[in-house]
Amino acid sequence: MQFLELVKKRYSVRGYKPDMVEDNKLKIVLEAMQFAPSASNRQPVQFIIINTQGKKQELRKIYDRDWFINAPLLICACGLPHESWVRSDGTNYTFVDVAIAMDHLILAATEVGLGTCWVAAFNAQELRKFLGLPEEVIPVAMTPLGYPDIEPTPKERKPLDELVRYDHW
Amino acid sequence: MQFLELVKKRYSVRGYKPDMVEDNKLKIVLEAMQFAPSASNRQPVQFIIINTQGKKQELRKIYDRDWFINAPLLICACGLPHESWVRSDGTNYTFVDVAIAMDHLILAATEVGLGTCWVAAFNAQELRKFLGLPEEVIPVAMTPLGYPDIEPTPKERKPLDELVRYDHW
Repeated sequence: MQFLELVKKRYSVRGYKPDMVEDNKLKIVLEAMQFAPSASNRQPVQFIIINTQGKKQELRKIYDRDWFINAPLLICACGLPHESWVRSDGTNYTFVDVAIAMDHLILAATEVGLGTCWVAAFNAQELRKFLGLPEEVIPVAMTPLGYPDIEPTPKERKPLDELVRYDHW
Repeated sequence: MQFLELVKKRYSVRGYKPDMVEDNKLKIVLEAMQFAPSASNRQPVQFIIINTQGKKQELRKIYDRDWFINAPLLICACGLPHESWVRSDGTNYTFVDVAIAMDHLILAATEVGLGTCWVAAFNAQELRKFLGLPEEVIPVAMTPLGYPDIEPTPKERKPLDELVRYDHW
């Protein structure tokens, strides 16, 4: 599939079948994540894979949506700011590095027929407690991972001339 | 090309031919950027396209590398934190949204044979001056865009068991 087609095929899947993700598909999405670039190749990321079985009520405290707790797997993409590259003006690139890696995982999942949904509106405190995250590990984004049980809706995007400008053209 | 193959094909291109990027290719990479997801679909990004012709000496102040100033185009990916989604704990998702959009642009460029290189080590102050950026526009990442004039080098990545953990498995 062409990349642009893949980008347009991805959608925020807010409904999952109970079927488990096969190991070979999990392997593909993790490898796509692993080969993501990062600032100065520091790879300051930790991806945590959560099997939701038997934990659904606990997971509601993190993000209270049926489609979230009912996906067979959740992925929590974390950053390690103390291992990240930092620009001379103090800007830390953890969030960028985690986002690239998660984007790779999500696009790879789309290609193999799996659904995902970027989730940032989780309760970070409850998530930290659930995963036992030390202070230096920052949860940046989550996604369910499983087979979609809903149809895509059309994407609404700003026109390109609002998003792009040509400088000194 | 399969997505995993595309991910592995991308490399940090530090050498460009002088040939200009064709309009149809620029259109594809910008469309891939446009269809990137963002927190709450706010799309708080501004992508600035710089034609380097006649500006090479000025561009050296931003990032002093021959391969950077000699690429025909540079893309500056900026974020608009005041338009971004913010979690209830105050975490602003601008950097995540810009990174996803830039990742889409870079992968689309790879597919159509163009070279890119994530650059974060630019002089932000000089860049702001050059582009006349208002205070609320944050330059997050840059990339040259053009035809590669160097061969790829192998990617070194941490093993998966350093990047991934299985929780409550």
